[in-house]
Amino acid sequence: MEFLAHSFPAFTFSRRIRETPYEERVMGQAPKSMTIYNNTPLMTVFRSPREDYEHLCKHVQIWDVSCERQVEIDGNDALKLIELITPRDISKCEIGQCMYIPLVDENGGIVNDPILLRLDRERFWLSIADSNVLLWVKGIAYGMGYSTLIRDPGVNPLAIQGPRSDDLMADLLGDEIRKLPFFRFVRRHLAGTSFYIARSGWSGQGGFEIYLEEYAMGEGLWDCIWGAGQKYSIRAGCPNSIDRIERGLLSYGNDMTLDENPYECGLGRFLSENKEAECMSSEALGKVRENGIKYKVVHLLILGEPLTLPREAWRLKDEAGVFCGLLTSMAYSIRFGGNIAFATVEKEFSSPGQELFVDIDSDKQPRATVVSKFKD
Amino acid sequence: MEFLAHSFPAFTFSRRIRETPYEERVMGQAPKSMTIYNNTPLMTVFRSPREDYEHLCKHVQIWDVSCERQVEIDGNDALKLIELITPRDISKCEIGQCMYIPLVDENGGIVNDPILLRLDRERFWLSIADSNVLLWVKGIAYGMGYSTLIRDPGVNPLAIQGPRSDDLMADLLGDEIRKLPFFRFVRRHLAGTSFYIARSGWSGQGGFEIYLEEYAMGEGLWDCIWGAGQKYSIRAGCPNSIDRIERGLLSYGNDMTLDENPYECGLGRFLSENKEAECMSSEALGKVRENGIKYKVVHLLILGEPLTLPREAWRLKDEAGVFCGLLTSMAYSIRFGGNIAFATVEKEFSSPGQELFVDIDSDKQPRATVVSKFKD
Repeated sequence: MEFLAHSFPAFTFSRRIRETPYEERVMGQAPKSMTIYNNTPLMTVFRSPREDYEHLCKHVQIWDVSCERQVEIDGNDALKLIELITPRDISKCEIGQCMYIPLVDENGGIVNDPILLRLDRERFWLSIADSNVLLWVKGIAYGMGYSTLIRDPGVNPLAIQGPRSDDLMADLLGDEIRKLPFFRFVRRHLAGTSFYIARSGWSGQGGFEIYLEEYAMGEGLWDCIWGAGQKYSIRAGCPNSIDRIERGLLSYGNDMTLDENPYECGLGRFLSENKEAECMSSEALGKVRENGIKYKVVHLLILGEPLTLPREAWRLKDEAGVFCGLLTSMAYSIRFGGNIAFATVEKEFSSPGQELFVDIDSDKQPRATVVSKFKD
Repeated sequence: MEFLAHSFPAFTFSRRIRETPYEERVMGQAPKSMTIYNNTPLMTVFRSPREDYEHLCKHVQIWDVSCERQVEIDGNDALKLIELITPRDISKCEIGQCMYIPLVDENGGIVNDPILLRLDRERFWLSIADSNVLLWVKGIAYGMGYSTLIRDPGVNPLAIQGPRSDDLMADLLGDEIRKLPFFRFVRRHLAGTSFYIARSGWSGQGGFEIYLEEYAMGEGLWDCIWGAGQKYSIRAGCPNSIDRIERGLLSYGNDMTLDENPYECGLGRFLSENKEAECMSSEALGKVRENGIKYKVVHLLILGEPLTLPREAWRLKDEAGVFCGLLTSMAYSIRFGGNIAFATVEKEFSSPGQELFVDIDSDKQPRATVVSKFKD
C-alpha cells in the first residue's frame, strides 16, 4: 500500500467536530490514534492494540464514548415510531431495559444498530452507531405526521469495561450495582451528578455504560472514577479491535452498511418475523426470507504473520481467482494464533471450512478459512 | 488551552471513513492537516493556511472534495419532495442550473445548505455540506409516501479553483468552457470519462467543480489536469479558511447548525416567502418573520496578533462582561490586518460597529468589532 508509506496529516478540529466533556482527561493519557464517529472524536489506540487488549481483559478501563449519541424520542407516538423503524418487536421492552434493535429501511437496508433504552412508557433513547439516525427519524416522523419530540439530548456516555468493572463501580455506587442484570439500567448519582447506568458496553469483557447528561460534570465524574480505579489499575481505553472481533461484534459502517440487510449480517435472531406493530421493513424482509440471501457476513481466520488492512477493504478470491467477497475488519489475535476478520462473501462461499484467498498481490495471497465463531 | 499542549493522536482509517479516488495523489502532495467531512477525508492545510491562500489567489489549485456527497433524487415526486424541504422556490430552476438551497426542517432549523443541480426534469442532485441529508430525505419520502428513488450515486467531486482555472480548463476542454455562466453546468469528457462540470466551488477565487461518476477514472483525471496545470503552477489545495471567511462563506456545522434558522444566518435572500409549493418550514419561518430573530450570525474583525480558536468556540462578552455570543470560525487575514471571524451573537449586539470582547482569559480579552462585510 503506497498510501501507508506517506506520513499522515495531522487532524484539524473545528466546531463541526463535537467536543466531549472528558476530552482533556483523555488527551492527558496520550492516546496514539483516534477516529471520528458521529462527528465526535473516538480514540482507537492508547498503547498498542495488543497492550490495550491485554489490559482490558485483566483490569478495568474508562472509555470516552461520547460518540455514542442518543436520539431521544418522546411523546404519544414514540413507541409506534420505534416499532415502525425496527423489525424487532419492542412491545415487551420494560422501563429500565435495553434492547439491541437494528434499524431497517423500507428496502431492507440497515440504517444503524443502536441500543434502545426505555426511559418511560413513551420516552426512549436510541444509543446509536455511526450514522445520523436523528435526521432519519425526524424525517419519518414528519412525513407520518407523528406527534413526537425528537432531539439529541446532549448525553455523553462513559463506558467502564473489563473484569474489575463490578468491583470498581461497587466501591463507588454500593454493592447493589453488582446485581444489575445485563441490558438493564438504573438511575444513580456520583460526583455531584445523577445519570442512568446500564450493564452494557462494546467489549466482550463486561462492564457498564454511564449516560452523563450534565456536560459540566464530566471531568469531575472522570476524576472520581479514575481515583477509585487506581487500586484496580484503571487505564483510559477505547473499543478494542482484537476484543470486538474475537467476540463477533460487527461495526456499523465497517462490517454492515445500508447496502446489507439484517439476514446477511447474521442478525436474524433479533428480528420478529410476525410482529404486530406496523413496521416499514416488513415487506422487504419478507422478500429476503422468501428469496434467500445473496451475501453473508462471516468470520475468517487467516493463519500466519499479522496482516494490515488497506485503506478500505481487502478483496477475497476463490481458488480459481474469482472475486467473491470483501474483508471489512481485521485484527491479529494471539489467542486464536492468527488474523481474525469479518468479511462479506457470496453465500455459496460462506460455509464454515470454506477456504478463500486474500488478494494482497499476485505472489502472496494468504489463505483465509471461514469459521462459525472464534472459539478457543 | 491545555488541550493543545498535548501531541495529537494519529488518525485511524477504516472502511467507515470513505476512500476517495484521488487519495493517493492527494497524499503524494504531503498535506499537513485533514478533517473528516461526511465520513470522508478532507484536507485542510497543505503548506500553511497563508501559503495555500496566497497560491489560491494567484494561480490554480485542484481540490479533492469527494466529501461533497451527492444525494440523488429521481422520480415522479422529485420536484415536489425538494420543494418540501427547502424554503427557496425552485420551480424555475432549469436543467443545467445550480441553486444554493438551504434545507430547513419543520421547526425552522437548518439541516444542510447544499447546491441543487437539476440534471433532468425530475432528476436532481443535492451536493451537500456535512450532515446526512440522504437519511433525512429518505425518511421524509417514506413518511409522505412519495414515489422517488433516493441514493448516493457514488460521485466524487474535484474542484478546480483559482484565477487560472479558466485558462487550465480551456486548454483541456476547449475555449467554450470560458463562457459557462456561474452556477451552470454542462456535460464534458476528459481522460476517458465524462462528467458534469459546473462553474462553482467553495472559494472566492472562481473556478469549476467536476462531478466524477466513474471511481476508477479518478487518478487518470487528476493526472490529466495536474499535467496540464503545470504551466499554471497548479498545486493540490483545499477549502481555505482565510479565503472563505474573507468572502463570507458560512460553514455548516461550524457557523450554522440545526439550532439556527436561515434568517439568523443571513440567508433571508435565498428564501421565497410566498412560494406556492408545499414546504415543511413555511409555518415555522413565518413565525420567525413575525416575531423577529433572537440571534444573528455576524462578521467580526479582531485587530492585533493572530489568535487561535480553542477546541470548539470562543465565548464573546459585552463591555459589562455579560456573555452575548459565540465565535465559531476564525482566520488571520493579512489583507484586513487582523483576525476575521464569524460569530453568533444576540441580536442587540449584531449592528456594525458593535464592540465585543473575546473571552480568552481574564487578563487578555481582545476587542472584536462587528462589521457588515470584510471589505478592502
